[in-house]
Amino acid sequence: MIIVAKDNPSAEKIAKALDPHDPIHPVFVHNNRVALAGIKSLEPQQMEPVADLVDSVITDHHSAIKSSRDFHPEDTIIKTPHSVIGGDNFVLMAGPDSIESPEHVLEMGEDVKAAGATILRGGAFKPRTSPYSYQGNGEVGLKAHRQAADKLGMDMVTEILDTRDVDLVDKYTDIFQVGTRNMQNFALLKALGQKRKPVLLKRGMSATIDDLLNAAEYIAAGGNDQIMLMERGIRTFDNKYTRNTFDVGAIPVLQKLTHYPIVADTSHAAGHSEFVAPLAYAAVAAGAQGLMTEIHNDPAHAFVDGAQALTPDQYSAMTAKIFKIREALK
Amino acid sequence: MIIVAKDNPSAEKIAKALDPHDPIHPVFVHNNRVALAGIKSLEPQQMEPVADLVDSVITDHHSAIKSSRDFHPEDTIIKTPHSVIGGDNFVLMAGPDSIESPEHVLEMGEDVKAAGATILRGGAFKPRTSPYSYQGNGEVGLKAHRQAADKLGMDMVTEILDTRDVDLVDKYTDIFQVGTRNMQNFALLKALGQKRKPVLLKRGMSATIDDLLNAAEYIAAGGNDQIMLMERGIRTFDNKYTRNTFDVGAIPVLQKLTHYPIVADTSHAAGHSEFVAPLAYAAVAAGAQGLMTEIHNDPAHAFVDGAQALTPDQYSAMTAKIFKIREALK
Amino acid sequence: MIIVAKDNPSAEKIAKALDPHDPIHPVFVHNNRVALAGIKSLEPQQMEPVADLVDSVITDHHSAIKSSRDFHPEDTIIKTPHSVIGGDNFVLMAGPDSIESPEHVLEMGEDVKAAGATILRGGAFKPRTSPYSYQGNGEVGLKAHRQAADKLGMDMVTEILDTRDVDLVDKYTDIFQVGTRNMQNFALLKALGQKRKPVLLKRGMSATIDDLLNAAEYIAAGGNDQIMLMERGIRTFDNKYTRNTFDVGAIPVLQKLTHYPIVADTSHAAGHSEFVAPLAYAAVAAGAQGLMTEIHNDPAHAFVDGAQALTPDQYSAMTAKIFKIREALK
Amino acid sequence: MIIVAKDNPSAEKIAKALDPHDPIHPVFVHNNRVALAGIKSLEPQQMEPVADLVDSVITDHHSAIKSSRDFHPEDTIIKTPHSVIGGDNFVLMAGPDSIESPEHVLEMGEDVKAAGATILRGGAFKPRTSPYSYQGNGEVGLKAHRQAADKLGMDMVTEILDTRDVDLVDKYTDIFQVGTRNMQNFALLKALGQKRKPVLLKRGMSATIDDLLNAAEYIAAGGNDQIMLMERGIRTFDNKYTRNTFDVGAIPVLQKLTHYPIVADTSHAAGHSEFVAPLAYAAVAAGAQGLMTEIHNDPAHAFVDGAQALTPDQYSAMTAKIFKIREALK
Repeated sequence: MIIVAKDNPSAEKIAKALDPHDPIHPVFVHNNRVALAGIKSLEPQQMEPVADLVDSVITDHHSAIKSSRDFHPEDTIIKTPHSVIGGDNFVLMAGPDSIESPEHVLEMGEDVKAAGATILRGGAFKPRTSPYSYQGNGEVGLKAHRQAADKLGMDMVTEILDTRDVDLVDKYTDIFQVGTRNMQNFALLKALGQKRKPVLLKRGMSATIDDLLNAAEYIAAGGNDQIMLMERGIRTFDNKYTRNTFDVGAIPVLQKLTHYPIVADTSHAAGHSEFVAPLAYAAVAAGAQGLMTEIHNDPAHAFVDGAQALTPDQYSAMTAKIFKIREALK
Repeated sequence: MIIVAKDNPSAEKIAKALDPHDPIHPVFVHNNRVALAGIKSLEPQQMEPVADLVDSVITDHHSAIKSSRDFHPEDTIIKTPHSVIGGDNFVLMAGPDSIESPEHVLEMGEDVKAAGATILRGGAFKPRTSPYSYQGNGEVGLKAHRQAADKLGMDMVTEILDTRDVDLVDKYTDIFQVGTRNMQNFALLKALGQKRKPVLLKRGMSATIDDLLNAAEYIAAGGNDQIMLMERGIRTFDNKYTRNTFDVGAIPVLQKLTHYPIVADTSHAAGHSEFVAPLAYAAVAAGAQGLMTEIHNDPAHAFVDGAQALTPDQYSAMTAKIFKIREALK
Repeated sequence: MIIVAKDNPSAEKIAKALDPHDPIHPVFVHNNRVALAGIKSLEPQQMEPVADLVDSVITDHHSAIKSSRDFHPEDTIIKTPHSVIGGDNFVLMAGPDSIESPEHVLEMGEDVKAAGATILRGGAFKPRTSPYSYQGNGEVGLKAHRQAADKLGMDMVTEILDTRDVDLVDKYTDIFQVGTRNMQNFALLKALGQKRKPVLLKRGMSATIDDLLNAAEYIAAGGNDQIMLMERGIRTFDNKYTRNTFDVGAIPVLQKLTHYPIVADTSHAAGHSEFVAPLAYAAVAAGAQGLMTEIHNDPAHAFVDGAQALTPDQYSAMTAKIFKIREALK
Repeated sequence: MIIVAKDNPSAEKIAKALDPHDPIHPVFVHNNRVALAGIKSLEPQQMEPVADLVDSVITDHHSAIKSSRDFHPEDTIIKTPHSVIGGDNFVLMAGPDSIESPEHVLEMGEDVKAAGATILRGGAFKPRTSPYSYQGNGEVGLKAHRQAADKLGMDMVTEILDTRDVDLVDKYTDIFQVGTRNMQNFALLKALGQKRKPVLLKRGMSATIDDLLNAAEYIAAGGNDQIMLMERGIRTFDNKYTRNTFDVGAIPVLQKLTHYPIVADTSHAAGHSEFVAPLAYAAVAAGAQGLMTEIHNDPAHAFVDGAQALTPDQYSAMTAKIFKIREALK
């Protein structure tokens, strides 16, 4: 349940009075709102001592209570060294699928920066369907990625696969990325909840909207409120022409339910470069607050997922159109 | 297989020479292309008599051969009395879900016309999940719909559910609509293939892209090439916040594969009025050549599907933004 | 709502008193139960005149009211000339996918009869994905099918695709089959609701349990209560190794909700002959009251769907095992 | 590719000659078969030195090469202290969802042992959708679980969620369980591949058959071949009456493709206790080599998932029927 207090000092007092000192059912305060996680209602006598401080009570909120607009009505704005994410801001993240070499990630970074991107993506740990596919180059890749980002004045985002790697990745990255296959790797989510660095949480390929919000809540429950949610396509009965079904409707739905920035990855949704841009236009038109795109200067020889990579030229043509659509929507 | 002839007279000669006079495997000609439906290859000796007339042969085309770009590379443009549909044109179809009264459909028509629509939608035969829900008012509704369209100088589109009603509906409508539940009602598709009036074919809620093209081919095989395809949301594992999952990627995919105009119905996809507009912006940004929208001046008392109806004011605000997005995409 | 009367004469009196003479909201009586279709509750003053006759009232029933166990608690038993279907009875339906010739259907009938089948299946009107695939041989096939069934002392079941064919098919068949693509062809369901001959209604490939029950209700609402429901596999994200996902859980779920016999078609679910038998064992173990199977003596040359056909030998080996499983479950 | 050698010594020689010393593309030997993982073909000159030792070559095998029947034709048989799993053997695993107390798990263990189970299940680390739900009691639970298993002479199976817990869980359990949400937690699979203890790998709720085999391959690639695969229901468009759709067809499909034992969990598939048994009968009839079931003596007060728990009496009634079905299938 959420108790709306008359003001913030009252909220703090209510929280203190009601705190059950229970690791599973913690109490959170945001401005004048007090969230009692996992608790549906209190007895009148429990409420009595704080009754004077209470303005109203909300009981029909989402189970992901910290993530809900009922607890945190205004948009979360995330600030990284080179980007502002959320609210009316718009952010472009782009780069190669995997870090292939220091030179390559730098070159790709130059290209995407020129096209408007402020966050450089790239994978050093790659979650591949088969154990016999390229698995990424680990810390070597993290270092090259960091150097390229620093040289270009960009932020770095990279995927983390293992709880044992949290501190290693933390040494390099600005933003942790949790991939679709780990969206319900609760041990990993809890570990990232202990950090105070932004997390980009991708929707699981068959995760419902509620599953996604509850996954975010695992991070938030630990105290890390710097969360972005990413729609990247879901698994349906038809994947012949696109790799996944891009659920564009998830964007406005999530923006209604939660205060976190909602961003889109249309590279993995499309799976084929020719459909990456139309899906990106759709995402932006539907209100996405950011866009992640995979690029490669030689897609045919990319280490991973070349079929869905845009060339730098295709990318800059796409971002030009995206800025126009953003303009049209104002 | 598709034989590309040197010119149209050659194509006609090839078709004549190869026509197997087989109702299941007909031969079609479009400009300099000859389609041998359902036939994968010919023996060299069968090809020999026409070899001089042949430029090239295509064998990896879609089984929906007449519907494929390989047979008909350029966009199909459909002309109705008040609309031009397909190619670079953009068309708005709107109106009430069901025809409630002559006055109501006329009033709704006035509103949507003012907002830019040229095609007035409305249902006289309603396909309802339960037999105890309102089933539409039949010919009474068709008449009222026709009168409103005539008075306003608009085209009429309405759904047909039964092969026995084809002539009745034909008396009134400008465009036949086939609904999602009848996309593979092959008897109905064949009957409409015998008409020479445009057909708006909605994608089945669990139809693949290939299923949709093959369904269109049932109409085309009968000789009716005036077909529009409509994405209206598919059935997936999550329908808690939207009624269906709007498969925005189907729009560019279909435009690559087929020459028919691709239009979108975001009312049925959304199921809730607040998400109809964001999905419409997405559809248009992804390249949709038209948009169908349900409106009602008093959604709470609509006979059918009021929850997803926009008010006339919401509709005109939406179309204004849509025109801006179209502008931005040029 | 369902009113449970003290006895059947009371139920008739209640029905008469409350009948709204409304074609959409009819009133049905079964033994001592009165169903008010599409009506959720009555005002106390409306109930008053019949209050003495009422035992209790059920309001949380399924919207498919006639199909629900709340209205009709005991199993429906369907009797055809050569079969008893439903309750503790078990029925085998088998035969070729399509009627290829009088000789062939007769030969296949002999084989399946020897293996225990009492209902001979076969298609004269075939719903094919492509218009250029074999569409069946129409009335010629119906006649051959009827003759084979008569000669063998079996019942005939065949698919109907078009409302215009209802009387034609009715001339020949013992049981109407409605296929998966027509499960929500409401015009066809209504037409069959006017007949007094059993209908075998296949679940749509993406129909929910509720959709299936509501589709059955379209037939029942017209007065035809002789309905069998068939699980035949649903469309999911994986159809690489089986054509559909056989939803074996639908069998006990439907048996809880409705009184109609629940039968299974594992040929279309499997799509490959090697998986037809294991799925059939599963269906029977889960409680299916009947089984439909496609057979062919020369699957490689079957007109339609040879890949999923069992040979007569495979079929009789399978039915022998099925009888043993039935025994084990007693 | 798989090279079939004339005998095992030849296979060892071939492996030695072709070993690329490449961690991503290792070479495996099983009897007279040599698997070159991730390699589609070799040049004739590469094969020449070992040509005399080669009987034949298989190139159309599954990418999960060690898991495929092409590499390992005969069934894998797993032996734990109290159970033999795989081949013609049949195993029952049962117990409470979570370890609630030492007394409770012991009592439940007594009941399921009496009904025929040899493996005692129970969760000490619980993957819950919400962070505010009970998360298990950790090592305290592991200890109680181990003690109960030892006292009863049963094997212990329990879920592992975090790579950091592998050694801890290893101290207690006989079989590691990987849950549906972690099926593609590749870091965890790799860590378990380093152990030499059986792993029970549950199918992801939207994992294809191929995804499941490739996930198993992550474990096998590390050298741990003691793997069981578990079907536990998939996510589809309908979960109103059952929690998941039990994909019974996956059982014979997997048995064709892989040599690992295939077991079923019908508790999570059903989600409601009344459907657990019919699904279990179906699983066994379709050929499942084992069955996992959740039980509780007081389902209404179970810490986790009480709705799907059978009581001990229901469980023993179910296993009695299962033994009869097994008999009938012989």
